[in-house]
Formats: sequence, structure tokens, C-alpha cells
Amino acid sequence: MLLRMSTLFLRTLREDPADAEVPSHKLLVRGGFVRRAAPGVYSWLPLGKLVLENVSRVVREEMDAIGAQEVLLPALLPKEYYEATGRWTEYGDTLFRLKDRKGADYLLGPTHEELFTLLVKGEYSSYKDFPVVLYQIQEKFRDEARPRAGVLRGREFHMKDSYSFDIDDEGLQASYDAHRAAYIRIFDRLGLEYVVVSATSGAMGGSASEEFLAVAATGEDTFVRSTGSDYAANVEAVATPAPSALPVEGLPEARVHHTPDTATIRTLVDFLNAAGLGRDFSEADTLKNLLVKTREPGAKDWELLGVGVPGDREVDLKRLEAALEPAEVALLDEADFAAHPFLAKGYIGPRALIDNKVRYLVDPRVVTGTSWVTGADETDHHVLDLVAGRDFTPDGTIDVAEVRDGDPSPDGRGTLYTARGIEIGHIFQLGRKYTDAFAVDALGPDGKPTRVTMGSYGIGVSRAVASIVEQSHDDKGIVWPREVAPADVHVVGTGKGEQIEEALRIAGELRARGLRVLVDDRKGVSPGVKFTDAELLGIPTAVIVGRGLKDGIVELRDRATGEREEIALADVVDRAEAACKA
Amino acid sequence: MLLRMSTLFLRTLREDPADAEVPSHKLLVRGGFVRRAAPGVYSWLPLGKLVLENVSRVVREEMDAIGAQEVLLPALLPKEYYEATGRWTEYGDTLFRLKDRKGADYLLGPTHEELFTLLVKGEYSSYKDFPVVLYQIQEKFRDEARPRAGVLRGREFHMKDSYSFDIDDEGLQASYDAHRAAYIRIFDRLGLEYVVVSATSGAMGGSASEEFLAVAATGEDTFVRSTGSDYAANVEAVATPAPSALPVEGLPEARVHHTPDTATIRTLVDFLNAAGLGRDFSEADTLKNLLVKTREPGAKDWELLGVGVPGDREVDLKRLEAALEPAEVALLDEADFAAHPFLAKGYIGPRALIDNKVRYLVDPRVVTGTSWVTGADETDHHVLDLVAGRDFTPDGTIDVAEVRDGDPSPDGRGTLYTARGIEIGHIFQLGRKYTDAFAVDALGPDGKPTRVTMGSYGIGVSRAVASIVEQSHDDKGIVWPREVAPADVHVVGTGKGEQIEEALRIAGELRARGLRVLVDDRKGVSPGVKFTDAELLGIPTAVIVGRGLKDGIVELRDRATGEREEIALADVVDRAEAACKA
Repeated sequence: MLLRMSTLFLRTLREDPADAEVPSHKLLVRGGFVRRAAPGVYSWLPLGKLVLENVSRVVREEMDAIGAQEVLLPALLPKEYYEATGRWTEYGDTLFRLKDRKGADYLLGPTHEELFTLLVKGEYSSYKDFPVVLYQIQEKFRDEARPRAGVLRGREFHMKDSYSFDIDDEGLQASYDAHRAAYIRIFDRLGLEYVVVSATSGAMGGSASEEFLAVAATGEDTFVRSTGSDYAANVEAVATPAPSALPVEGLPEARVHHTPDTATIRTLVDFLNAAGLGRDFSEADTLKNLLVKTREPGAKDWELLGVGVPGDREVDLKRLEAALEPAEVALLDEADFAAHPFLAKGYIGPRALIDNKVRYLVDPRVVTGTSWVTGADETDHHVLDLVAGRDFTPDGTIDVAEVRDGDPSPDGRGTLYTARGIEIGHIFQLGRKYTDAFAVDALGPDGKPTRVTMGSYGIGVSRAVASIVEQSHDDKGIVWPREVAPADVHVVGTGKGEQIEEALRIAGELRARGLRVLVDDRKGVSPGVKFTDAELLGIPTAVIVGRGLKDGIVELRDRATGEREEIALADVVDRAEAACKA
Repeated sequence: MLLRMSTLFLRTLREDPADAEVPSHKLLVRGGFVRRAAPGVYSWLPLGKLVLENVSRVVREEMDAIGAQEVLLPALLPKEYYEATGRWTEYGDTLFRLKDRKGADYLLGPTHEELFTLLVKGEYSSYKDFPVVLYQIQEKFRDEARPRAGVLRGREFHMKDSYSFDIDDEGLQASYDAHRAAYIRIFDRLGLEYVVVSATSGAMGGSASEEFLAVAATGEDTFVRSTGSDYAANVEAVATPAPSALPVEGLPEARVHHTPDTATIRTLVDFLNAAGLGRDFSEADTLKNLLVKTREPGAKDWELLGVGVPGDREVDLKRLEAALEPAEVALLDEADFAAHPFLAKGYIGPRALIDNKVRYLVDPRVVTGTSWVTGADETDHHVLDLVAGRDFTPDGTIDVAEVRDGDPSPDGRGTLYTARGIEIGHIFQLGRKYTDAFAVDALGPDGKPTRVTMGSYGIGVSRAVASIVEQSHDDKGIVWPREVAPADVHVVGTGKGEQIEEALRIAGELRARGLRVLVDDRKGVSPGVKFTDAELLGIPTAVIVGRGLKDGIVELRDRATGEREEIALADVVDRAEAACKA
């Protein structure tokens, strides 16, 4: 490949686009890799198309290596398939819907679980046919409420989606593990810094799933990592270690105190510390009971649920929703309190909940033998020294208290801190949600049908391009990792005729050695502009053919390290080739 | 590449699909290359995806070779661009339209003239920037009224579309010529038999254009070819050679005859031959005058037009529409005749038209000195011996009479016959329709703006796959040309363990030599089924490892010729490689 900038369809920009906030958006537009066609809809220009193809190639190679077979399904899909699984409705406004000339309903595929399931059902029927893994690299469409950050969150975007089909759970686990390993190889090759976090699955259905998050301050996803290990998890998936139970013998008896106007933890602690009880109280000594109501899928009625957490922590509503999924959850309103007069608002304690058969779940830290200040189920009253396992026994634990920087890592090594990332990959053990919807069975060796089980696995190909730029840039431009760079080497002829001729000659030789070459052969463009463009475009290795040419000297530059070296003209092809293959 | 049929996602079918009428549809489905997802919407399975990629690769290589630069534009396009050019409306029901969550109107791109024009306008501004040719290979969407024949006419399909931008007509001609040459190379490499025909351009706008038609009895397009040359043209574009003018001296005088009840040519000729006029009359001796009305774009009123053709030919309405484009044309209704009493229906002659200033155009065969029987502008009367150039002078010629098998070829070599074809490519000199709509100017060397001129060029990539099958199959299955075949060689192990092991070994060696190999390593499948599948799938070269193996003999088969040869096992890899590289 030899691209000449004199004819390349490329105009770099000196100014950031007005609508760009994150570095990848700014740099991909300024470097002429992409152009906006509509909100969240982008055109890929020649250099951008090359990067997109390079990422796709890496993905394809690693998918092929695990025996996945490439297919290509349509984007235009009939409603009926997505209605069968409920996703026609579940996807809400995020689905692009349209009608054909006959009035039939269609959608633009956001992911293709339904069609792949039907495809396999159509071709395969025996246990001998399985396992099979199919994938495609294709445009996907999602009508995001807030398309943002260029190609980082677009409405039409490029995705690799694959689907595994197995006849049993062990097979699904093997397909999942193969994908997990392939994803690690892919993201390693793409030069990304990423973490693999446990995830909850959301609208896809199913259970075990992990997300691959590219670490980036501009990411939309929050996760926690450990200071002392490679532990990382979605906040929803952090498991708080439960301390060991403590002996209850010898602990003071529980006593009710009159604590006027102490409906908040803060006012309670202040009151207690001012009451001369001979000890100091902190918010962590209190047990805060949050009342919510839940409703199982398909159920008509809501049920009360009490959630007890140490008073120094809030309940994290996202963690609460994830913990109770697939049930709905809502906070109580005034009518709910009115309907349950035993709930003394601001002073709720375990006693009234347990006595009134309200399900009561507590934070994992509330182990037997821990002693708490908590509500006495009577306005302006609290109980002190209420001991778990002695004075009350909850119905179980629920891990929904907020996760804070400095919390111990669940793996026992180091403490947690929050970070942000971009979801670049997602692997799901879907199970039988879709094969149940379409009754996909394989006939077993015994002649009996077995319901097939599925995994689905996605990589945001266009998003990966942006994520690479988020992680790999400086104030001058992009620094492409070699595997995805639009070219291996950028030969810049800075002067008039002679240097440009020499640059073209060197470029031709490098190309003959199998390198992908971009050559700046523009006439009437100043060296400064050419250097600025070279740094913006971010090709890993540059060869500068400038004034030194008359002395037989050219310069070799490394975009990532900034290192510059003057070398003899006679050595430049060997040295540039070596740099590209290092 | 080494594909094993034991794990390949492929199930061949013995029966034609119920909805399939044409060979390519039947065979691509039976061979497991494609599966229908919705009317006119298809999924490409692994072998089909490989063929699609091979065709795309050929297209890409030849486009790159003419300096075209690959980009990738979105399918989801905002209405505003297509409204600016009028295509939002002009495309009618064929456009897939949709709204996003905010109610904004979008369409799915049927072709991308608008977006490419805007892209170039956004980047380029000087005459030095031009010419530029951009292309993409991408899914296109058209809501065809009658999707048919599998991927031959789909509603979501794969297309290469390219666009040239030049600052003058000579540049456009050069870009057009480069595309024409590239298309010839592409379709030659794809092994297609095709013709290049002049075309009228339809909804794209613009003037000079040619179509590439793959010759196929199942094609939707009719064209004519010559028995004596490689002349081929769309019926609309056939130019009838005008005979030389004849001397008028000595020809009999025109005389009006009473010809009762002769409003049709047939009744007129029968009457004349029965009238004892001393000579024989044929339909070709009569001049039939068809009255139509036309309306120029934007005009309010219709105008009358008389069209005179030899009475043995009908006016071809498609040719008439093409000849009058962009004006509208319609037949006269009773009210029109009532409004123009000088029109004696069934007996209209040149005289009344000329006297009443109705524009009168005649077939190119109506040259000076030809003598005609034609209407006398009075019911039940005709005039004989009315001589063109003596008794009437038309306003010009119009070439809209039907073209018939046996007509002389316009190039003077051989005669014409009609044939059918599939439009696989189309090249247009668009001119300035789109650059006018978006005011795309390049600043000239004199500092003055020049309006840029455009060409657009399409290849139906998925349609090309089907066209290849239409032309290259037999009653047993597909016969892939080597360049697009999903594999170079198909190694079939027909027996039990030993033959399959040997087939895998041979396949591995062929792969090591750089060949793309499909190996039938299925156990428990009969040799007959494997042979039938091999013929259906149509890989050019097959190696059969069967019973002869015990004697060190395998068989080499050529799918196209049907030739079979027994060869020594030791020679098979060399011989198969030679066959694949022949």
C-alpha cells in the first residue's frame, strides 16, 4: 500500500470541531478519519476506513482461530422475530422501526440474537451438529437518546457480534471461555488497556456475563478496581466481604432511648454524642432501614422489603435494582406508609418488620454479634445495643450499600477505587431465553429433544477505534498502535522537488518490502504544516526527508516516544523497515 | 483456508425452495450459500460470504487500480439532503423512510450521490484538489415493489458505488472512461458474459450512461444485439439507420381515395388490395400517424405531437418516453379529440397536422422521396402516393418505432435480435445535477469558481454473485469460476476412517501450498451424497479419495468440464495445485 498525500482524500483541521468534547472525537475529526453525516452517524474517510479494517481484521483472525464461522445477516429485520422474544417492545425508543411499502413492520438490527437463533434452528437438528459459533462484522443501529463523542456512542456503528449454540451448560461454558480468551487476545493486539468486569445483563436476558472496559477518564461506565490486585468489577457486581460472626455473650442489653427529632442519621448521632452516654457514636454504629416495594415479573401486587445498611452508607439504587432483578423495585410513597401504620417513618427498626412479616435483608457487614443503634418503631425513639443474631434475625443479606473508595477489595488484596471505562466488549451466557422463544431443540443420542443453550458476544469495532485514540494520544495528535495504524510508516518530503522525489523513492522501496506507506508528497506545503499533520495522523514511524538530504542525511522519528535520529540515506530503508517490524 | 464440512455451518437441500423460479435462486439456497430472512432480504452463510468477499475483492482491486479511494458512508441518512435534490419525493415508495425518536425524518440509502457530493464540498475547494474518485462497498436499501429471484433483486443488497468529481467535461469523460475500463476488467475477471449497452438514465439525472448487462434468459432487461458484430444496446437506445433520400422526380401525384371503414392499417391494406389499383400494398407502404400530447417539466399546458411511423410497426412507448425525456408524454383522450376537430380519428394525415401547427415528427425511414399511403384528414378517406419532401415536410425525425428481430444493425453489420440480461453495472455522466443542488464550486487558477461535474458508477455485488450462477451452472449445481469460488479445491474423503484421514492429510498439504481448501471429512455420509454435494457446491477442482486409495489411486475431477482422471496418490498435491493455478 502506498498512499500519496498529494491525492489522498484528506483535509486535516487545525481547530477542534464545535460539538466535540472528548479527545477521540476531536482527533478523529481533525485528522480526517471520520466526518459527521447526522447526529450519531458518521462517514469513514480513507484513513479511517483503513483503521476500521485493521481492527476488523484482528477481530476476524481471532474469531476464526476459535473456530467461529463468519456469516453476514441483513440489517433490515421483520418485526415478527423481535415480537416473539419481546424485544420489539423492550427496546423502547432505542429501536429504529420502519414500515415497508405494504405497511409491514421492520426494524434495523440492534443485535441479532433472534435471527441467528432462527438460522441455527433452520439448519441444525441433531446433537451431532453442535457446538457451532457464528459471527458477523456489520453495521448496527440504535437510536440512542444521547448520541455523543463521535463514533464512541453512535446510532449507526460497526460491531462484531457472535453467537454460540451448545447442547448443554458445559458446552456453553466452553464456548464462553473460548470467547473470553479470544477477546483478551483481540484487545491485547489492539494495544488497549482494559479490565474485565462482572456485569449484570440487562435487556439481553440471561445470567453470567462479563464486560471488557477500556480504561478511560471519558468513559461512560463506572467500575471499581483494587490498589493491590487486578481485581475489577462493575459497581453492581462488587461483593462485599462478610466479616466473621462475633460472640454475643457479654454484650450489653438492648435499651430503647427517647431521641427526639432524630429522623436522620446525622441528627441521631449528634443527639447520642450529646446525651452523655459515656461513649462516642459514629454513623457507622447505626443501622439504617430503607423500605422499598418490589414486584416480581408478571405479578400484580407489590411486596414490602426492608433493607438494613450501616448508617454511614447510602443504598446504591443501581446495585439495589441489579440485586433484585428481574423484579421491579420502587420507593414507598405516602400512601404506602399510610397503609402500613407499623412503619414509623424515620424510626423503623427490625422488630416491626419481623413482627409484621415484612421481608428484611441486611448488608453483609451486619453479621451475628454486631451491635447497632437503630429505630425503635416509634417516633422519636431509637434502640441501642440491638445485637444481630441475638435481638433480631434478618431473612438474609443483600449487597446494595454504596461502594466507596478505600473499601477492602473482595479478593482480600488492597482497597477499591473507582475508575471509568468504555465498554468495548461484552460476553454473555444467554442460556435458553431465545431458544425457548423459538423452540430450538437438538435431538440427543437417545432420540429425545434437548433445548439448545446460547451465548452472545459483542465487540464494538468502531467504538474500539475511538477507545484506542482515547488511550493513545498526546497534545499533538493520535499515536496509533502499529497493528491498527492506517500505515506503518509516514515518509515526509519537506522541501521542493528534490526532497519530494527522494521521499517518493524511499516510499516505493518501503512498499516493495511489504510495508504500508503514507508519503507526504505535497508541493507548496510548508515543512511545519507537514510535521503538524504527521503528528496529528499518528503513524508510528516517520521518515523525514528534508534539508539534510544534500548531506545524505534523513531523520527517523518514532511517534510514540518522540525519539528522533539522523541516519544516513543509504540506511533509511533498512532502518525504517526494522522500526516497523520491531 | 481449510474448511471442514464436518463442522462447516452448511446444510444442502435436495429440493428447490418453493418460492424460487430462477436457477441462481434455487442453487444458492440449495447449496446453503444464502437463506431468506424476509421478502427480498437474505442472510449470507459461510460459503456465500466467501463468494461475496471474493467478488468484493475483485471490485476493490480494480477500483484501487484506477486511483479510486475507498470510504464507508452510513446507510442511515437524513431527509434534508435528499429533499435538496428532490429524490426524497422522486424515489416514491422505493425509498425506505423512517423517523428517529425525536421525530426527525431519515431514509436508508438507495444510492449515495447526495452524501458524497456534500463530503467533497466539505473537504475540497480548489481546482488543484480535483479530480477525485471515491467508492464504497456497502449495503443498499430499496423497497422494490416485486423483490424476486433471491439475491438477484433484493431489498437489502450489496453494492459498490463510486463517484467521480472533476472540474470540467474532459475530466468527467476521463473518469468515466477509467470506470468503463475498470468495469470491463472486473466483469471479465468474474467470468461473466456481458454486454455494454447505451442507456437512458432515469431518476439519477444526467446524460451519457451505459449499462453492463449479464446475458441471461432470466434477466429483467431486454436489449438487442447484432448477428454480425458486438453491437448491443438497450431497446430505448437503438438508432435506426436512415436510408438515403430518393429522387422525387417522376413519382405519381398524390390522390385522395374513398376508403370506407379503413380506420386500421390492416383494413386499409385489405381494401386497397381489393380495389384493383394495379399494384400490391403492404402495411409497410402506409404511414401511420399517432397523436400524443407532451408536457415539458414545469410547464402547465400539454402540447400535441404527431408521430409518423411506417404502418407495419407499432410505436414503442418506452422508446417514445425515452426520446421525449424529460418531458412527460400521454395518449390523447376523447376530450382531446373533441377539442381539436381537425383530427379525423383513424384518418389523420400530415396535412392537417402541419396546417394546424401541430409538431410532426417521423420515423427515420420516412426520408425525402419515399411515397406513402396515409390519412386524408377526413373520415373514410386516405391519400395515396403522398411523397415526403414533396407533399409534406415534417418538423424532424423521432426514432420510436418498435425494434424487431431482423432489423439491420445500426453499425451496418448483421441484423438485430433481442436478448435478455441482468443489469450488473451502470456508469453515468451525472454532470452538475448534484453539484448544482449543493453549490459545489472549485476555485480556478484565475480565482473564479467553477461548478464541479460528477459521475456515478455502480456495481451490484450481490447481484453479480447471482448472475454468475445464472450463467455458470448445470443440472447438477453451480460451476463457480475460479476467481470467485468459495474454495480452490474440494477434497472428498468417501469411505470410513482411512480415506477421510488421507483426505485431511491431502487437504492440509494443499492448504500449505496456499490453496483455499474445502474438505469433506463427514463420517457416516454416503459417497453418493458427498458427490452430489460437491457438484451442487461447484468448487472448480475436486480430489476424490475413495476405494482406489488401497491401490494408491485417487481421482481428480474438473467441475466445469466433468473430466475425471485417476492419478497416483503421490502426485495428487502437485496435480491439484497445477489444476488450481491453470
